[in-house]
Amino acid sequence: LTAPTRAVHDTGCAEQVERVRRSEPGAIARTLTAIERRSPDVNEVLAALHPFTGRAYVLGVTGPAGSGKSTLVTRLAAAYRRSERNVAILAVDPSSTLTGGAILGDRIRMGELAGDDGVYIRSMATRGAMGGLSRAVLDGISVLDAAGFDVVILETVGVGQAEVDIINVAQTVAVVSVPGLGDDVQAIKAGLLEVADVHVVNKADLPGASKTVAEIRDMLRLKQRQHGQWDVAIKTTSASTGHGIIDLIAEFDRHRAWLEVHGGRTELDRRNTATRIRWAAEEHLLRQLGRSSTLFADAVDDVVARRTDPASAARNLLRQL
Amino acid sequence: LTAPTRAVHDTGCAEQVERVRRSEPGAIARTLTAIERRSPDVNEVLAALHPFTGRAYVLGVTGPAGSGKSTLVTRLAAAYRRSERNVAILAVDPSSTLTGGAILGDRIRMGELAGDDGVYIRSMATRGAMGGLSRAVLDGISVLDAAGFDVVILETVGVGQAEVDIINVAQTVAVVSVPGLGDDVQAIKAGLLEVADVHVVNKADLPGASKTVAEIRDMLRLKQRQHGQWDVAIKTTSASTGHGIIDLIAEFDRHRAWLEVHGGRTELDRRNTATRIRWAAEEHLLRQLGRSSTLFADAVDDVVARRTDPASAARNLLRQL
Repeated sequence: LTAPTRAVHDTGCAEQVERVRRSEPGAIARTLTAIERRSPDVNEVLAALHPFTGRAYVLGVTGPAGSGKSTLVTRLAAAYRRSERNVAILAVDPSSTLTGGAILGDRIRMGELAGDDGVYIRSMATRGAMGGLSRAVLDGISVLDAAGFDVVILETVGVGQAEVDIINVAQTVAVVSVPGLGDDVQAIKAGLLEVADVHVVNKADLPGASKTVAEIRDMLRLKQRQHGQWDVAIKTTSASTGHGIIDLIAEFDRHRAWLEVHGGRTELDRRNTATRIRWAAEEHLLRQLGRSSTLFADAVDDVVARRTDPASAARNLLRQL
Repeated sequence: LTAPTRAVHDTGCAEQVERVRRSEPGAIARTLTAIERRSPDVNEVLAALHPFTGRAYVLGVTGPAGSGKSTLVTRLAAAYRRSERNVAILAVDPSSTLTGGAILGDRIRMGELAGDDGVYIRSMATRGAMGGLSRAVLDGISVLDAAGFDVVILETVGVGQAEVDIINVAQTVAVVSVPGLGDDVQAIKAGLLEVADVHVVNKADLPGASKTVAEIRDMLRLKQRQHGQWDVAIKTTSASTGHGIIDLIAEFDRHRAWLEVHGGRTELDRRNTATRIRWAAEEHLLRQLGRSSTLFADAVDDVVARRTDPASAARNLLRQL
């Protein structure tokens, strides 16, 4: 009866936190929207949720457009559900804005997994600066983690630095290729080779699948593997028929176990935490600069008049704060 | 005789600054590469160049792939050259990485404008975080400005938030469309409508050009124009034949003059300066955090152990610094 936008303000922080922890879809959605918009009160909610994070398995799935990622992710989610694991899907398109097509994917997939309380699907985008999306993703994963999802699948669209930055926060990164997009193996070479824990050749029933597998194998051979490093495997799937999904999940489980044994999980948690602290420090600094608006305006004046340069002005400002 | 990578270290800052000011292509290239890589000594060079900036006219050209932007930019550069204005072209692809295809464009275009000392062409990309590219672009423009180029054409590939962020630093923003890519007018709607000072319908000899013009006109009508605001025009060009280029440059000159009269130039300079100071402050902060590594590691420990949350840890760190 109340409009959803009102509800954000009506719900106190403590109650919102409780509702997220009870995995209420409405509360999760409101919190993720607040993260996308970087609402001022979202930090309070995130701080209160933090003690309840650190349990979810975060699986990253990325690859070029047309590789059938979304169908694959839907299949993975359904398979995880059959083994009683709750699944959240966070789909991220670094090139889209809030007004873009991000919402569309939700609707299309909802049909297949709809009515299952153990599945939550959400697209994410931000209107803010470019780095804002990586931050929103890390915060979004924390919310889904605190909401008790066993598996959070982070899906990114496209191949590029943006995807590498975002997918890197996942515990396991699966890079999806398809036969017949020869150039895309080149694209993977450019950025995604370094981050892949598992290579998936999807649409493996298409002609050329074995050629794609061979190309990726060649790429992996060129990469020098150090002693004690994870052995990156190439798995074939056909998301449309479901072929290879169980085997792929077994590989993810194997990687997850490997991470635990080799301390990779803790290392990743520390890296993501360091990133979040840095972002929080930057936000705090920018808020301080915003508050001392006269000092800041004077600094801008000095630089515009070429009395000083941006870096010196910044150092001077920080000294005065 | 010395490898270019060695030369960066061999050349002292003062000498590099002098060479950039004399518009030596090698010195400009080295400085832009140092900016892309965020070399530690680049801040010193930028600080020394800052007093000599603020004169160049920065023209942003953006639009969807396939709109013929690169040919248009080459034509614009040639036309500016005919009126004795030195031109630098900075081509930016937000989705590419350093190892990507960014370098390619230079080679292709060099043929047409080669051998002219009054033209400098360069692609830019960064390996770093996403926001890093916007920063590299602003710094790169400063270098070209200090090197004495009258016009700096900033060309971005694609349509999205990344392009909006980057192109916004230009004094005049031209958004290029083409007939027959109906969806791309939608794409422009999503993000680029707000930033366009001039709309260019390129390939105007193709069927459907008048329809594209009409669609953009409709979009502009929906946008409420405030009193005293710039009147966004729609210009048609055919970059392949050169039709409309002179008229387009006249429109850019008109916008440039309008900016001067209405204080828009100073406003933009202040906005870009504020951004640069913020980035410099952030960099300084991150360097401080890096130096106090024990404090920072302790903060990470506390957050990983869920004794505190990232935002509280960051506030605490800043207090201690």
